[in-house]
Amino acid sequence: MNRSAVPPPVTAVLEAADAWLPARIEAVEERLRRLIEGHGEVLAADAGSTLEAGGKRLRPMLVLLSAGPAAGEAAIRAATAIELVHMASLVHDDVLDAAPLRRGRPTVVARSGRHRAVAVGDLLFSRAFAELGADGDARQVELLSGASVALALGELAQRRDAFDLGISADRYLRRCELKTARLFECACLIAQSEPAGARIEALKTFGREIGLAFQLLDDVLDVAGPQERTGKARGTDLLDGTVTLPLILARQRDDSLAELDLRSLDAAGAEAICERIAATGVLEEVRDGARRRVELAKRALELRRALEPGRRQLLELVAEGIVERYS
Amino acid sequence: MNRSAVPPPVTAVLEAADAWLPARIEAVEERLRRLIEGHGEVLAADAGSTLEAGGKRLRPMLVLLSAGPAAGEAAIRAATAIELVHMASLVHDDVLDAAPLRRGRPTVVARSGRHRAVAVGDLLFSRAFAELGADGDARQVELLSGASVALALGELAQRRDAFDLGISADRYLRRCELKTARLFECACLIAQSEPAGARIEALKTFGREIGLAFQLLDDVLDVAGPQERTGKARGTDLLDGTVTLPLILARQRDDSLAELDLRSLDAAGAEAICERIAATGVLEEVRDGARRRVELAKRALELRRALEPGRRQLLELVAEGIVERYS
Repeated sequence: MNRSAVPPPVTAVLEAADAWLPARIEAVEERLRRLIEGHGEVLAADAGSTLEAGGKRLRPMLVLLSAGPAAGEAAIRAATAIELVHMASLVHDDVLDAAPLRRGRPTVVARSGRHRAVAVGDLLFSRAFAELGADGDARQVELLSGASVALALGELAQRRDAFDLGISADRYLRRCELKTARLFECACLIAQSEPAGARIEALKTFGREIGLAFQLLDDVLDVAGPQERTGKARGTDLLDGTVTLPLILARQRDDSLAELDLRSLDAAGAEAICERIAATGVLEEVRDGARRRVELAKRALELRRALEPGRRQLLELVAEGIVERYS
Repeated sequence: MNRSAVPPPVTAVLEAADAWLPARIEAVEERLRRLIEGHGEVLAADAGSTLEAGGKRLRPMLVLLSAGPAAGEAAIRAATAIELVHMASLVHDDVLDAAPLRRGRPTVVARSGRHRAVAVGDLLFSRAFAELGADGDARQVELLSGASVALALGELAQRRDAFDLGISADRYLRRCELKTARLFECACLIAQSEPAGARIEALKTFGREIGLAFQLLDDVLDVAGPQERTGKARGTDLLDGTVTLPLILARQRDDSLAELDLRSLDAAGAEAICERIAATGVLEEVRDGARRRVELAKRALELRRALEPGRRQLLELVAEGIVERYS
């Protein structure tokens, strides 16, 4: 992995960890590269751009840290599988949103059209399960397919709720759970050898809460921008009809936000609404909520004393990195 | 299952089989219904229409017949998983083709737009692996994910080759193998308890060859029509830029077909090309090729004597049904 391309919080985790973690992250990266290069030139060009855009590899890191240094090849495969599902969902998300950019690079749908993007997503998705098929167990397949079902249901819920300004904060959070938190949770659980117990409960809470924090902060970022940092324009969610917590809360404070018509919005209009949402002060409130979830996540690991202190500290660093990235 | 909705060849198999087969097909149907109803109203409406459109349940039947009467719940789950992958691929195919109708009913993309259709396909796909996760083994996951990878690669190949009149018959067949034959093969193997041996080899050949025959005949049908029978307009492949064997062969016989511009084709133009393809006599040639593959499939089962005669006969009936449906 090219360290210079890795965001600072992740670098902090890698530097704090013994050599085993960077070596395994590199092994995941290598597997992803090989898988994508192994399906012919055209795919390599399409999926390769999604892969190279990199991202934080947060989910593989969660798999590897939760599994610990004693885990072998199976944890690397599980980490690869989770990242493939995540990549597949990004490729399909971009089809749904007709997004031109992801992390500042052209999306597969922008490069190659929605026909190819749907198929590339399907391929990445299938490859994820193929990773588990080689030597995984049925429980791993159950966990990953459960998280994938949740992802698709979250997508459907987002579509159903699109342009509806009346959706509640609870409904929004339920959607975040489906769309984001379940895969984080799955990453923390998939390489555990035991099916239940204190450690499982602790990791489950940890994964869920940092997943929710991640999504909350992502939604703040869509309002707060700036584009140089997020790699996409401000207010893309609004243009897409996706109503997120900042808008839900801001509408309770600013009457002028009560009567919006998201369907007739253009890019400049979306920017203007972002300004008005920010002016209500809700962004800091949502950020605080995310921070509280990260604290809850860390406390779950402490309370249960389910992990040895070294690994617990690394997981805490990952959790803090999620907040830091947005601060 | 509503028998009256089932095509005649499949009815023939069900009638020839002892009570165990219809009972298990009904169990698969019931599982599919429950799965789809269990994900909320919106999904039930979308995926329900795909499910109700029914189809032949050929793949589940292959799973159940290959597994035999002694197989239990696991075969029913495997059969359900295969059909879910098939349904997912249909839903995504229809997004790619922007198809208005499938089996005479509106497609998910036509009912609910491509946003929802992509997510519904993802959901069905995830549910397929969830079926195996519950009590399946790693080999089943390997087989199904391998077939799903092939499906996506076939889709990508079709997209890459679109509008290219110069593609060879070999290249076309390779695409059919990926897009269609691998899932048939998978259906025949997924509920086998042993990983290798004469029976596995025989079933593998059987599945592959009837899968290829199925695709060849499907492509003939797109040219031969009529719409009342196929539930979609003639020449949809042409309009989509998909060059299939009838056109590849017809171009060698009719010089006027050498210089086509598929990109500028309208529905009437596509109909006219279908007429010209049919006039060359290649449709019968392609049908003959499909019949030869069905014979090859049947011979594979006989030669190896891998299955008891009763089940072999039922599989032969399925194979013949594939040809009959189009004769």
